[in-house]
Amino acid sequence: MRSFSVVLLFLLASVCCAQESGNFQPATTNVWGAEYPRVDGSGRVQLRVKAPEATKVRVNFWSGPKVEMEKQADGFWTVTTTPLVPGLHYYMFLIDGAEVADTGSHAFFGGSKHASAVEVPEPNSTYYSIQDVPHGQVREVWYNSKVTGTWRHALVYLPPNYDTQPKARYPVLYLQHGGGEDETGWIRQGNANFILDNLLATKSCKPMIVVMAYGYARRANQAPPDSTGRPFGSPEMLKAMQEMASAFEDDVTQALIPYIDSTFRTLPDRDHRAMAGLSMGGMQTFQITLNHLDLFSYIGGFSGAGGMLGGRKLDPKTDYKGAFADPKKFAKTVHLLWIGVGTVEPERMRTGLQNLHHSLEEANIRHIYYESPGTDHEWQTWRRDLKDFAPRLFN
Amino acid sequence: MRSFSVVLLFLLASVCCAQESGNFQPATTNVWGAEYPRVDGSGRVQLRVKAPEATKVRVNFWSGPKVEMEKQADGFWTVTTTPLVPGLHYYMFLIDGAEVADTGSHAFFGGSKHASAVEVPEPNSTYYSIQDVPHGQVREVWYNSKVTGTWRHALVYLPPNYDTQPKARYPVLYLQHGGGEDETGWIRQGNANFILDNLLATKSCKPMIVVMAYGYARRANQAPPDSTGRPFGSPEMLKAMQEMASAFEDDVTQALIPYIDSTFRTLPDRDHRAMAGLSMGGMQTFQITLNHLDLFSYIGGFSGAGGMLGGRKLDPKTDYKGAFADPKKFAKTVHLLWIGVGTVEPERMRTGLQNLHHSLEEANIRHIYYESPGTDHEWQTWRRDLKDFAPRLFN
Repeated sequence: MRSFSVVLLFLLASVCCAQESGNFQPATTNVWGAEYPRVDGSGRVQLRVKAPEATKVRVNFWSGPKVEMEKQADGFWTVTTTPLVPGLHYYMFLIDGAEVADTGSHAFFGGSKHASAVEVPEPNSTYYSIQDVPHGQVREVWYNSKVTGTWRHALVYLPPNYDTQPKARYPVLYLQHGGGEDETGWIRQGNANFILDNLLATKSCKPMIVVMAYGYARRANQAPPDSTGRPFGSPEMLKAMQEMASAFEDDVTQALIPYIDSTFRTLPDRDHRAMAGLSMGGMQTFQITLNHLDLFSYIGGFSGAGGMLGGRKLDPKTDYKGAFADPKKFAKTVHLLWIGVGTVEPERMRTGLQNLHHSLEEANIRHIYYESPGTDHEWQTWRRDLKDFAPRLFN
Repeated sequence: MRSFSVVLLFLLASVCCAQESGNFQPATTNVWGAEYPRVDGSGRVQLRVKAPEATKVRVNFWSGPKVEMEKQADGFWTVTTTPLVPGLHYYMFLIDGAEVADTGSHAFFGGSKHASAVEVPEPNSTYYSIQDVPHGQVREVWYNSKVTGTWRHALVYLPPNYDTQPKARYPVLYLQHGGGEDETGWIRQGNANFILDNLLATKSCKPMIVVMAYGYARRANQAPPDSTGRPFGSPEMLKAMQEMASAFEDDVTQALIPYIDSTFRTLPDRDHRAMAGLSMGGMQTFQITLNHLDLFSYIGGFSGAGGMLGGRKLDPKTDYKGAFADPKKFAKTVHLLWIGVGTVEPERMRTGLQNLHHSLEEANIRHIYYESPGTDHEWQTWRRDLKDFAPRLFN
């Protein structure tokens, strides 16, 4: 009994400083019982990690400070960062050269691993946190994909009254994570369910089903590519990426959509089907929707649309198989084309999206272009994107 | 675009050795793309972690080897363990004194943190893995508990035909995790959903709803206890544990059960309500069910029942408020009392359960006592427990 009594004691211990006891408070992203990381009102983050025999410890925020930590007499290493902008910030510790997660943080799948993250609250912003409104449920489902020859896991958000209105049918938004993340990202990092709940509570968007799929795929019986010594941007690597993108496209259109439409009470036509994604998911969205305008009529690219252009100008006549060649036809076919980027994202991402926006304007393609003020290539940008995007769907 | 291209490349790289390429294979518990940990047919595990500047790296299996790792010329540390028994084994690295998770492993919440674990397959055992049978869905729900004054997250397994048989009502099993774990344990570590799917596919158990709640609770406005300098087993610590147990009991009976019964198509009476739990969850189950025999009629204690006795013999007249005082009444009231333990669990746990078993026999209390051969205080024991327990419910 001893082991779990000790655990209990730990769990019961000083879990959360009261507001008045000091400005620094345990982050909402911490596991229960963890006093660190702590965040203050200006967005500074205090970190702490026990590494008594280490000689060098750093913390690397992926879109933020990368700083050395200082060893204390008790074997803990600590640091206080400069202020971070509001939002969820991924980070890892580097302990004597080992990149590791913080055991005080909940795990958020990013960078192809269970990474740490700290939530810096946005003052007076409640749209992405749980409120006393009706809540949709998030379901875990498994579908058998003949494309990949595997069982695939997806998360599905169903709006609050799905169960109590057994004859209602709903439009569907397919919503994709970024590279290195997985199907859990939009719920765990993005709080997409709470964003939808809160929008629905004020009747700011239509009730919809949101499907979050695992964005990596390899065709059945296809051997994994050999990455040994392959340079970035090499033809072999581009080929491998294209193969995966193509396998995922087929998985979505041939396995996932049929599964969703046969499992849930959807409105299974193009007028009631949207797709959006962030970063890699935005690229996937453009590829899949523009190749399948028979299936989709709403398109969202969050910090990642047009990535296949590699920064060059869009050629509306030839790019995306000419989907943008005829603006009138496009306006009739696509009910919404939405692209967005954070104003402090890396230069290349920002100019890529801006160029796409200007190219679309020049080509007279009706679209929405949104900039998230002061946010980087991070989840606060994509939460805001979803908040702006979702109300424009299915009207 | 560069960052997620690199990530993509990583994901595409050598993900899984084919069976014939060697005996050691990446564990099924790895993240996509991770070559380590690797497991061979005898249950040996190879681990690898990059820590180029570290001076000492160990791996600690919680119920297994705790061994030094060896530094290689490339900055990676490696080790191959002795054979482990089949099952899911939690472990952490200790890098220069810092206890950290392995980024190659999926994260499993245990020990109050996102820990690593490696799955050692059980030969010819398919009962806890995904099969080509109808699958239930696992729903994430949030309920507002007046007991704790907070929103609480729970997972709910619904059997395969729940949606297609809109008039069917189902019995409910409340299934609790262990100390240091959370509401995700029975799905992520235990594969409870696949165990139920597979039992249902062979009609080996009744269709049921399984509710997995978060087993920690503090009453609204109750200050967290101060753990400073409090010795193990001290009156203050026991009081804090009792307070938490009592708050959780009220949360289950006053908030969770009413929420579940009003949200899902349950059979909301004691004859159709079971509770079971592992380790700490087994203690909670005994406390909650025996205090509320008006609500429950099936009871399961997996490696944790009777923990409140502290190893002493059960006194049927006084313990658990005399619930065991009258064997005939008990047999009429409780349709199933089930306790189990792994044969290689720590001495204290094993004798605790054996003593409880003998005490119940002496008191003529009808019950099932099950021993899981060769397994420790780990998930393989509890998967087997569920496989034996679930078919005995609601008959």
